[in-house]
Amino acid sequence: MLGSGFIGRFYADSIQGYRNSDKIVSVYSRREESAKKFADDYNVNHYTISMEEAIAHPEVQMVCIALPNNLHEEAVMLCCQHKKAVITTKPLGRNAAEAARMLKAVEKAGIFNGYLEDLVYTPKFLKAHESVRKGALGRILWAKSRETHPGPHSDWFWDLEQAGGGCILDLGCHCVEIARSYIGKDIKPVEVMCWADTQVKPIDAEDHAIGLVKYENGAIGQFEVSWTFRGGLDLRDEVMGTEGTIWINSFLRTGFEMFTSGKGADYVAEKAESNSGWLFPVGDELNELGYNHMFMDMFNAFEAGTAPKETFYDGYVVNAVLDAAYRSAKSKLWEPVQLDDWRGKTGVGQDSHLTEYDAEHYFVKEEVTHYGAKKLILKNKETGKFIEKLEG
Amino acid sequence: MLGSGFIGRFYADSIQGYRNSDKIVSVYSRREESAKKFADDYNVNHYTISMEEAIAHPEVQMVCIALPNNLHEEAVMLCCQHKKAVITTKPLGRNAAEAARMLKAVEKAGIFNGYLEDLVYTPKFLKAHESVRKGALGRILWAKSRETHPGPHSDWFWDLEQAGGGCILDLGCHCVEIARSYIGKDIKPVEVMCWADTQVKPIDAEDHAIGLVKYENGAIGQFEVSWTFRGGLDLRDEVMGTEGTIWINSFLRTGFEMFTSGKGADYVAEKAESNSGWLFPVGDELNELGYNHMFMDMFNAFEAGTAPKETFYDGYVVNAVLDAAYRSAKSKLWEPVQLDDWRGKTGVGQDSHLTEYDAEHYFVKEEVTHYGAKKLILKNKETGKFIEKLEG
Amino acid sequence: MLGSGFIGRFYADSIQGYRNSDKIVSVYSRREESAKKFADDYNVNHYTISMEEAIAHPEVQMVCIALPNNLHEEAVMLCCQHKKAVITTKPLGRNAAEAARMLKAVEKAGIFNGYLEDLVYTPKFLKAHESVRKGALGRILWAKSRETHPGPHSDWFWDLEQAGGGCILDLGCHCVEIARSYIGKDIKPVEVMCWADTQVKPIDAEDHAIGLVKYENGAIGQFEVSWTFRGGLDLRDEVMGTEGTIWINSFLRTGFEMFTSGKGADYVAEKAESNSGWLFPVGDELNELGYNHMFMDMFNAFEAGTAPKETFYDGYVVNAVLDAAYRSAKSKLWEPVQLDDWRGKTGVGQDSHLTEYDAEHYFVKEEVTHYGAKKLILKNKETGKFIEKLEG
Amino acid sequence: MLGSGFIGRFYADSIQGYRNSDKIVSVYSRREESAKKFADDYNVNHYTISMEEAIAHPEVQMVCIALPNNLHEEAVMLCCQHKKAVITTKPLGRNAAEAARMLKAVEKAGIFNGYLEDLVYTPKFLKAHESVRKGALGRILWAKSRETHPGPHSDWFWDLEQAGGGCILDLGCHCVEIARSYIGKDIKPVEVMCWADTQVKPIDAEDHAIGLVKYENGAIGQFEVSWTFRGGLDLRDEVMGTEGTIWINSFLRTGFEMFTSGKGADYVAEKAESNSGWLFPVGDELNELGYNHMFMDMFNAFEAGTAPKETFYDGYVVNAVLDAAYRSAKSKLWEPVQLDDWRGKTGVGQDSHLTEYDAEHYFVKEEVTHYGAKKLILKNKETGKFIEKLEG
Repeated sequence: MLGSGFIGRFYADSIQGYRNSDKIVSVYSRREESAKKFADDYNVNHYTISMEEAIAHPEVQMVCIALPNNLHEEAVMLCCQHKKAVITTKPLGRNAAEAARMLKAVEKAGIFNGYLEDLVYTPKFLKAHESVRKGALGRILWAKSRETHPGPHSDWFWDLEQAGGGCILDLGCHCVEIARSYIGKDIKPVEVMCWADTQVKPIDAEDHAIGLVKYENGAIGQFEVSWTFRGGLDLRDEVMGTEGTIWINSFLRTGFEMFTSGKGADYVAEKAESNSGWLFPVGDELNELGYNHMFMDMFNAFEAGTAPKETFYDGYVVNAVLDAAYRSAKSKLWEPVQLDDWRGKTGVGQDSHLTEYDAEHYFVKEEVTHYGAKKLILKNKETGKFIEKLEG
Repeated sequence: MLGSGFIGRFYADSIQGYRNSDKIVSVYSRREESAKKFADDYNVNHYTISMEEAIAHPEVQMVCIALPNNLHEEAVMLCCQHKKAVITTKPLGRNAAEAARMLKAVEKAGIFNGYLEDLVYTPKFLKAHESVRKGALGRILWAKSRETHPGPHSDWFWDLEQAGGGCILDLGCHCVEIARSYIGKDIKPVEVMCWADTQVKPIDAEDHAIGLVKYENGAIGQFEVSWTFRGGLDLRDEVMGTEGTIWINSFLRTGFEMFTSGKGADYVAEKAESNSGWLFPVGDELNELGYNHMFMDMFNAFEAGTAPKETFYDGYVVNAVLDAAYRSAKSKLWEPVQLDDWRGKTGVGQDSHLTEYDAEHYFVKEEVTHYGAKKLILKNKETGKFIEKLEG
Repeated sequence: MLGSGFIGRFYADSIQGYRNSDKIVSVYSRREESAKKFADDYNVNHYTISMEEAIAHPEVQMVCIALPNNLHEEAVMLCCQHKKAVITTKPLGRNAAEAARMLKAVEKAGIFNGYLEDLVYTPKFLKAHESVRKGALGRILWAKSRETHPGPHSDWFWDLEQAGGGCILDLGCHCVEIARSYIGKDIKPVEVMCWADTQVKPIDAEDHAIGLVKYENGAIGQFEVSWTFRGGLDLRDEVMGTEGTIWINSFLRTGFEMFTSGKGADYVAEKAESNSGWLFPVGDELNELGYNHMFMDMFNAFEAGTAPKETFYDGYVVNAVLDAAYRSAKSKLWEPVQLDDWRGKTGVGQDSHLTEYDAEHYFVKEEVTHYGAKKLILKNKETGKFIEKLEG
Repeated sequence: MLGSGFIGRFYADSIQGYRNSDKIVSVYSRREESAKKFADDYNVNHYTISMEEAIAHPEVQMVCIALPNNLHEEAVMLCCQHKKAVITTKPLGRNAAEAARMLKAVEKAGIFNGYLEDLVYTPKFLKAHESVRKGALGRILWAKSRETHPGPHSDWFWDLEQAGGGCILDLGCHCVEIARSYIGKDIKPVEVMCWADTQVKPIDAEDHAIGLVKYENGAIGQFEVSWTFRGGLDLRDEVMGTEGTIWINSFLRTGFEMFTSGKGADYVAEKAESNSGWLFPVGDELNELGYNHMFMDMFNAFEAGTAPKETFYDGYVVNAVLDAAYRSAKSKLWEPVQLDDWRGKTGVGQDSHLTEYDAEHYFVKEEVTHYGAKKLILKNKETGKFIEKLEG
């Protein structure tokens, strides 16, 4: 385990949770006291302030990178050198160039690589995605993902140099991969329009952004990200298809409802912004946020000698989309996604929007009116005129 | 009442509902049978297929226009001629030029004019807007409004000539006025970015669109509109401010929950897409959708000799924003909102995002950590470095 | 209007709300300053501290009783004397004996009488009840109604002599009429089991109670009432039938969702128990709580010369059920409902629970198993043995 | 693993799920084909139709009983004989006498014993219970648990001899232990009132029941159970305390929301009653329903040589409460809970409901009125009169 901060502890809670057979054998941190505390808390035998020592440790089979964004590349390169399997927190790089270098390195070294995008491993996502794959929503038209909260926990996130960006990079990476998964990971993202601003925080990076990602088949991905949201951690996705709709709330309203006058003790959820009134504590954060199923996929794939569902290649595609978003926020133009290494389908056209009703008409809509009758709206193929046709 | 279709009947249900003292005295429709049926259903003494005859009818004090978009201007001009108070369904015009002509005409004629934007009169909107006005959310950063459903009821909506546009004009007019009301009707909308496409329906107009509206104070309005949504009528708004958040569902989940095997009779809500399984019937559509409070404001203002909350001027501003959206969907650029007649504030700057903590630091964030401690994140004013400071 | 307190003001807001043609012409209160203030606030021409003077006022067509429970009978008797139509807040009497006397008096006097049970007039109830009536839920098995909040607003409620009871009488009267309406107002309530206790408040009356009401057809009504609930006003109903289920939340989660840090001003809903954190303001209380549709029914029925949906007879039945509940809470037995005056069906038996599958079997259940197969569970008519039968 | 049916498979999915180190080494079923299929599906090395052979298998450390209720006692006695740790599905016995014999036997044999009551191990329950324990709700007044669905999966449940009862025994055992846990497992349940009926199914046992359980400290537990509910699996709990409220939905509305026209393929949740319209698939049933945390507690306790949270003693108490419920349903009286072996507190009185305000008054209620003022309601200690006092 490289890193002993907030996300490292979340990972450790999940990896060593339940009755798991997997163990953390070494931990690296930049500060010795942090490394030692982490080792104590999680019964880790070895701790060090030398990244290479942790990676090279003979009992280490797989390296888990939970470091600030600017240290990912260095850590990955050391894993390549020592031929250790590597899994990395999101985003993969601070930009697509970094990500591409890491991708090439791990593939050249032939080592197992996993991209820790937990939000495509939440139990709800897994089941919703399965429904979409089986056709429950028909053709996918739009997939929106929203992640907003009152700002990250550690100081380095706020520093543009270490983080490489603001909430677009920190949160948008989740949203882009979620939308891409619903639309199809083999469909090429072609261009991005993004608005971003620093509305509230005294920082150089953006604290609020909204973006649209156009895919080659005409589907639209949308992300809404912010570090200025008040009320907790808001994680919601929506998907529209020709045959259906999906709405997922992944955090804020997924627990139970509790009203408390606040006269009791110090019992409160750490991600809530208040500790009295109506609260919505989440039962099992590690599971709801996807960590358990993510590590299960990573370790199972590693043992089976296969690729996990999310690899460095996915991390690279996400970085390329986010790069286009940053360019668009500045240029105010739709910016092309630059993917030198595209492994999905090519030349996919937009699906037809002409559904035939009969020889002379296209079908527009069928409905039951306010007053009980069944009504069809049709378009004449030749004249282009719209007609209403009552049935039954 | 001009028009006897879907929306005309909704209006009539509201105007003559409860124990109201207001009555419809004449109805005009393009088809005699429709006019007659409407007159019978609502106990209207006079019906006609001459628009002018209805407007000029001596007992008519106020004319309510519930006609296709392309007939608004003609009707308004007749009201000006006959000096009758006029209220018009949304959108005011098919574009800002039409709207501007109508606005000038009614103001020149000195007649009462109201813009029937029902969704800023829903009981939830009224209460939420009051909270925002009183400061419950602090400074407003973003206001999103979404209206999507499976497509409109009448044939003319689908015809680009009569309607003047697709779902942007039909539904976006609601969304723009909602967001504008939260951000402040005196704040100038300056530019618009919009994506639009025809993804599903065999029509020339757009059936799905997403747009961003930038206001002079840096706030962002967002609209999401579609005629391709499956599952009913989706009307939801969200507002983010520096001190709080508002989420409003105005229709789809506002009723009760009913599971039925469907073996009973023909009991089903007309706006639902299915009649068995879990259904969510809305108790009182007229009230939930704002019609009652809207007509109350219109009639009270008319009697008091004051302007209603929504006038032709608001309709004109909305049309100007939507014109920019249409231009943007084509040009793929942020398009300026052309408002030759602006009556709100000018020269409003963006609010500062620098909150002072002490002489040396800006305040970034305060939180209770995952492990119980209270933590401040601060930024040094001179060095720009971020630090974490533990308290308590 | 007799009474100028909390409920009297709610009634007045509804009666004179929207664009209503109905007006309050006289108000009586026991305290002159209250009567005067009410008259000022609602533009009432006449006020008095003589109940009879208000009732006898020549412009008064209908008397609305909004007084403490112990004054209902006196007011009703005066209405009978002066032959004025009368509508009374709930409960009708402090017990069935009082209610029976009032019922006989108004019927003997031949005056219009209405029972102001607003919660069977909420928009959701009206629509849900219509669905039940049309068969969407099949045969009704159980109807539960729950009303709990942190205790009533006025001092007299807490005084056993004036109120006649605690939360059973104050809130149970709503719940009993709601459940009775779903099960069928023509089905006789036969016996009641009730637990009641004074758990929190320093009063003689009960502050928490739960009761079961058995109807002649085997259906069960349930009430849950309390003055000790924390978190606001909880109004929820549930109905189970052989073909479906209904869940209704009538207040606490029917508005919008607002998070506020509380740094803004004094904007808060009066029925909420807190003014920061997540709040759920209700948009239109008068409409959601049924007042508008209730008075509409009352006034329309009065003008049409028919009986309203809820009359003194309904109030009498409710009082008889509550009397049985009070007896049961003491005796710890199922107590019979004493209805000397029953106007519904008699001799209704319990419906059969034997559904035939084929000549040899009764049908128990059909389901799709965890592993995909379709399974029937049947019971052999002769042997009584249960078998599983797989299909498809 | 004894038993290869529905619940045995649920258990196996959980025990061998994630990256667990625990393995099933032998499976017993009454039918060889079922035993073999189970062994194949879960990679179990040994299967048998001899219960004793499975229990005595040398690699078996712990026996998990997932058999019909009438076979629990036989299996437990064999575990005692072979000194194998034993965990048993709920209910422990068909009645308290059976449960008491099993309890005595395991304690005499000195073997580890666990009671598999999964619903006090759901993630939401664990967190809610922790909040209650820390005082967030103050003194607990009432705890309600509801479990209803359209009926069990296997034929034996419907047979009174094998099952020992209907939905009270099958579902009420969950509800009683949930309520008892919130109120305090050291507080004695003293008497039970229960209504039960066979309303829909062609069976001898009850298919619908409602019960109240009075505890020595005056708190009330409530259960609502049915095999006739339409709409899925309804699992909801509510808790009221002097300082707060908890509402938990443990299944039906805990997943995501999906609308589908049903034109896609066979994608549907097995516990839903329909496969089109609005559906609410649950993401991770095993975790939501408590299986993972339950087995974690059982195995961790076993390794640590301590008792798990739920033991045979808890099963015995639950059976004693349910016995009283069955007696009450017949006698129509509050029936005492017969607990010959009580290990909790004794002589606990009901808490006082007199909160002092000042020397002369008790405190009744504080509220902000409809019109903005802050109001106290107080009771004079001597006169018993209630007064309203307005503040600042």
